[in-house]
Amino acid sequence: MKLIDGNAIAESIIEELTLNVCAIQGVRPVVAFIRVGEDPASISYVRKKQKTAERIGIESRLYRLPEDVSKAALFDQIDALNADEAVNGILIQAPLPGHIDETETFNRVLPNKDVDGFNTLNIGKLCQEDASGFVACTPAGIVELIERSGIETEGRHVVVLGRSQIVGKPAALLMMRKALPGNATVTVCHSRTKDLPSITRQADILIAAIGRPNFVTGDMVKAGVAVIDVGINRITDSSKKSGYRLVGDVDFEAVAAKASHMTPVPGGVGPMTVAMLMQNTVRAFQASRSIA
Amino acid sequence: MKLIDGNAIAESIIEELTLNVCAIQGVRPVVAFIRVGEDPASISYVRKKQKTAERIGIESRLYRLPEDVSKAALFDQIDALNADEAVNGILIQAPLPGHIDETETFNRVLPNKDVDGFNTLNIGKLCQEDASGFVACTPAGIVELIERSGIETEGRHVVVLGRSQIVGKPAALLMMRKALPGNATVTVCHSRTKDLPSITRQADILIAAIGRPNFVTGDMVKAGVAVIDVGINRITDSSKKSGYRLVGDVDFEAVAAKASHMTPVPGGVGPMTVAMLMQNTVRAFQASRSIA
Repeated sequence: MKLIDGNAIAESIIEELTLNVCAIQGVRPVVAFIRVGEDPASISYVRKKQKTAERIGIESRLYRLPEDVSKAALFDQIDALNADEAVNGILIQAPLPGHIDETETFNRVLPNKDVDGFNTLNIGKLCQEDASGFVACTPAGIVELIERSGIETEGRHVVVLGRSQIVGKPAALLMMRKALPGNATVTVCHSRTKDLPSITRQADILIAAIGRPNFVTGDMVKAGVAVIDVGINRITDSSKKSGYRLVGDVDFEAVAAKASHMTPVPGGVGPMTVAMLMQNTVRAFQASRSIA
Repeated sequence: MKLIDGNAIAESIIEELTLNVCAIQGVRPVVAFIRVGEDPASISYVRKKQKTAERIGIESRLYRLPEDVSKAALFDQIDALNADEAVNGILIQAPLPGHIDETETFNRVLPNKDVDGFNTLNIGKLCQEDASGFVACTPAGIVELIERSGIETEGRHVVVLGRSQIVGKPAALLMMRKALPGNATVTVCHSRTKDLPSITRQADILIAAIGRPNFVTGDMVKAGVAVIDVGINRITDSSKKSGYRLVGDVDFEAVAAKASHMTPVPGGVGPMTVAMLMQNTVRAFQASRSIA
């Protein structure tokens, strides 16, 4: 079994982007982060993204808004960043407080600055196989892991576990597109699927994104399967100082014994998300210069 | 085997819409057709749509542009209809001449008048399961046929043959959505799929949309399958005055012997397309009135 090292692959993408950005004379790409409230996880995610941006040579700007910010004030901030020609990418860190509609907020970001790929127009472009759009970072990272691990997709059966808007569906659309990596036969399964093991056992490539710890067991896969585990679940572990540890949606030991390739959790899909955000930002920057 | 009578189902939708429109006092819904060139098939399709609109009480307007129309002149016409508050729906009859980009043209139509459901934003909304968008008429018609024939979809395995932007992909997205009809396990197959019969034989519901005459044979399906045949293919038939007849993507006789439900060709999905266009137009009209 070949372990797919998400940290190493993310690192090589970050290095490629650093070289790209270094080669640019004059202006820097700029990514703007909007963080609402003081959720510790959000603070930590945004800090990590800022650090990676800085390493690459992307200027990052952080806009912090209070938890009780009005929709109007949030949208004014987005509009100002939309209008600012120096800003190439805008990321609004989820989750947003309950009084703010996330879809409406993500759609407020101009599609050509929507480096998170959450704008409805970018989702439509993904469906239409229009490469000018931005693909959401997690599904984009999954595809990149598959490609850089030399896993063939053409004509193979990809089974996607989970039908979320931000992972399952876009990953399925990417795998079925008329291009590589893609050209796969794709099955999407979910909580309503009957006799799930009979379907997952057909998978040449299994993408698990249902958020249930160790859900995929050894008897649910066939020998030689390549497994991309998108789940990041906390389970209690008294042996850890924190009292918990992170596990994926796949029972690692049991499935690793049969798989050809497999991502670990943590260290698989996770690090790719930040790398793909940076890639989208550099692309947004390049697109803005080619127009100007 | 229960034959799914697309003509009868389309007729009942048209009658429902007629009652809806009759109940409206004062203004009528208006649909505008743009037809470029004099392609006989396009002339016939638009005439059929106009006739159905008139039956329902929808006012239809036809704008004929020459085959060599400039993109600017076509877009001016679209813009004028976008700006005309009396116009609820705009349909640009495909195919367009080679010098005009179809995606760009469909995207010129305002999303809230895009009764054909081809605008990128409406495709994104379909993916996001946002019911405020318009679904393209053929996949919407497929879902309606399934629902009105009492075919259950929840937890069942839907196999879609074909991954086109206008049929295969939207039909797959509709069947996997978290609502009914939907909640199905969905597999999308296409020209690159290996060992296709082993997959089509798993189908509880088979949607064939690949445009290859009589492609699905009896040994490719299991007993009890419900079959929606989207193909409309001309094959030579010297016994016909025209010299040809229309057949679907499915070998009707052989598959009918095993199926629980099946659409004929012609008279299955075809008539539904016009009915769904009218339904979208009435919806656009109602939405415009609820805003005003």
